[in-house]
Amino acid sequence: MSGAAEPLVSNAKLLAFGEAVLTKVGFSPDDAALASRILLDADLRGVASHGMAHLVDFYVRRTQAGKVNPHPNMQLTSDQQAAATLDADNALGFVAGHHAMGIAIEKARATGVSWVSVGNSTHYGAGAYYAMMALEHDMIGFSMTTGGRLVAPPGGLGRAIGLNVLSVAAPTSREWPYVLDMATSVVAAGKLEIARRKGESIPEGWAQTATGEPLTDPTQLHPDGTMLPLGGTPVHGAFKGFGLTIMVDILTGALSGFGTSAEIDAGLTAAHCFGALRIDAFQPLGDYRERMERMIAAIKETPRKESVDEIMIPGELEHALAAERRADGRVPVHAVVLAGFHDAAEELGVTYDLED
Amino acid sequence: MSGAAEPLVSNAKLLAFGEAVLTKVGFSPDDAALASRILLDADLRGVASHGMAHLVDFYVRRTQAGKVNPHPNMQLTSDQQAAATLDADNALGFVAGHHAMGIAIEKARATGVSWVSVGNSTHYGAGAYYAMMALEHDMIGFSMTTGGRLVAPPGGLGRAIGLNVLSVAAPTSREWPYVLDMATSVVAAGKLEIARRKGESIPEGWAQTATGEPLTDPTQLHPDGTMLPLGGTPVHGAFKGFGLTIMVDILTGALSGFGTSAEIDAGLTAAHCFGALRIDAFQPLGDYRERMERMIAAIKETPRKESVDEIMIPGELEHALAAERRADGRVPVHAVVLAGFHDAAEELGVTYDLED
Repeated sequence: MSGAAEPLVSNAKLLAFGEAVLTKVGFSPDDAALASRILLDADLRGVASHGMAHLVDFYVRRTQAGKVNPHPNMQLTSDQQAAATLDADNALGFVAGHHAMGIAIEKARATGVSWVSVGNSTHYGAGAYYAMMALEHDMIGFSMTTGGRLVAPPGGLGRAIGLNVLSVAAPTSREWPYVLDMATSVVAAGKLEIARRKGESIPEGWAQTATGEPLTDPTQLHPDGTMLPLGGTPVHGAFKGFGLTIMVDILTGALSGFGTSAEIDAGLTAAHCFGALRIDAFQPLGDYRERMERMIAAIKETPRKESVDEIMIPGELEHALAAERRADGRVPVHAVVLAGFHDAAEELGVTYDLED
Repeated sequence: MSGAAEPLVSNAKLLAFGEAVLTKVGFSPDDAALASRILLDADLRGVASHGMAHLVDFYVRRTQAGKVNPHPNMQLTSDQQAAATLDADNALGFVAGHHAMGIAIEKARATGVSWVSVGNSTHYGAGAYYAMMALEHDMIGFSMTTGGRLVAPPGGLGRAIGLNVLSVAAPTSREWPYVLDMATSVVAAGKLEIARRKGESIPEGWAQTATGEPLTDPTQLHPDGTMLPLGGTPVHGAFKGFGLTIMVDILTGALSGFGTSAEIDAGLTAAHCFGALRIDAFQPLGDYRERMERMIAAIKETPRKESVDEIMIPGELEHALAAERRADGRVPVHAVVLAGFHDAAEELGVTYDLED
């Protein structure tokens, strides 16, 4: 193993390793390949917190523990022209999400707009992947999911609601799409994980202690600290972040009927929803792109702070990074993660061939 | 006039006054009544910044200036099963919004889900009204609009994007609905108006000067200060607020084809969108309500700060206030606003009968 903390690992080898490991714990080759592709996609886009790093500790371990069903019998409990609900039968979230977004896209092709709510699912990785499935169909895509119950409502001190996520993707006039992929908290939990790993403190305003004091030592989050909704404090908009968190819960766990982040098994089971809007059901695609270009150009021409080279639209940086990493054929993977892969390979009887 | 800064004025008289004034400047009695009802609804819910206070300075003056068309020829430029686009022909935003949300509800009744994008419109008041139209149909409602161009993107110093607004309403298990009605900036511009009127300073983090310094004197916003996107600073999530602002622009001005907040006449013309999800297209309504109750109960049972009596769900306080003000038959209206009404009544030849 290289001495660097984050050696570069071949994308192809990571995909093959993910497939081998997931097949070994019971998934079909197709599902194992799909999950690996979605995980690698997050690494390519620089979202390492939702990428291959969790292959073993989330997906393999939860499947071994019987929390994820490798052979789900997914069923539509409602199927209307533009709406559907999927009972995912505890499928791997990647499998449920990919299937449900596919249904949303087909429905939007017919009616112009669609929404699919999903319950009885599990962690689906980075939400952007599903929203972005709409792009090649010239649609705007939505994807939302419940997250682990770690967030206190404004004025609260307990873990009442999830680190819920809202993702939106839309074609633009440029080579990159607009992609918003945000936890409805000030920051995602991954930011605390990273600070912990580095031994760094975190800024005030991300989290609070059990008594409501600012929490700046990320090792203090567990067992009873809480993350704060976007906005942080009421005076800076915490009721907005709280309202968005609930919006996601309503559209996922309440609308599907399988339970919101306030009641489901925190971080293990999940509810999602997916939406698609076919742009040419509203207006010709060329006109849409023209309006997008005018917006993007106006934003980029805005006067900037001296320290800022260019104002970036959400999704722009991630697209550039993914293109670079695809061309290079490699993504960085933390040494600790690789060590875990090494051990898992031995345990599962899978070839470990990730290092040069 | 009472000596109080905010005398209480009869709801019925305010409605009649609004109707008389708007009819006088050219609106049909039906449109004038609709607009007055929507304005009063904001006052009832405690959103005075979007209520009757703007009757004259926004709606009457803009109509007199030819910016609002009292006899619009509103046309659907696209009409698909679950999707439509409305060219509002510079209608009063209330008229365009009410019409478009009605279409969204009818479409969702048939297909389960719908989305209607609107351009060539004007200021539509508080977005919650339209989202809440879905409630009596047991639907979840969405309403979004472009706002005045006053927001700088993260790293930017110029007014690139609008004070865009996202509103969502959903039935709950309680007597009040969930209602989120938020500018995608840290605060709405109304908060600065109020501070200016009171001669108070504003907290750091709401706005910045033309050079990017914290702006705490609200009189300094014009001509070249900027409001900040929700999150405020990049470290506290400003890219999320920025991303939400763009999401609203995409779904309103780009999707309708009539232009986003980055290019349309700041604050005068507007683009909106409206969505409806019929809950029983996803699952039986009773099951939905049960999941909502579990979520609400869990949130309300969360340990609280000592200073907090109860954790309120978005929409709960506004519902209670509206019930109180309906029962009382009166809402507070600032004395300055009443003085303006008095002058406008004289100018337009309308009876002024708002004070006891």
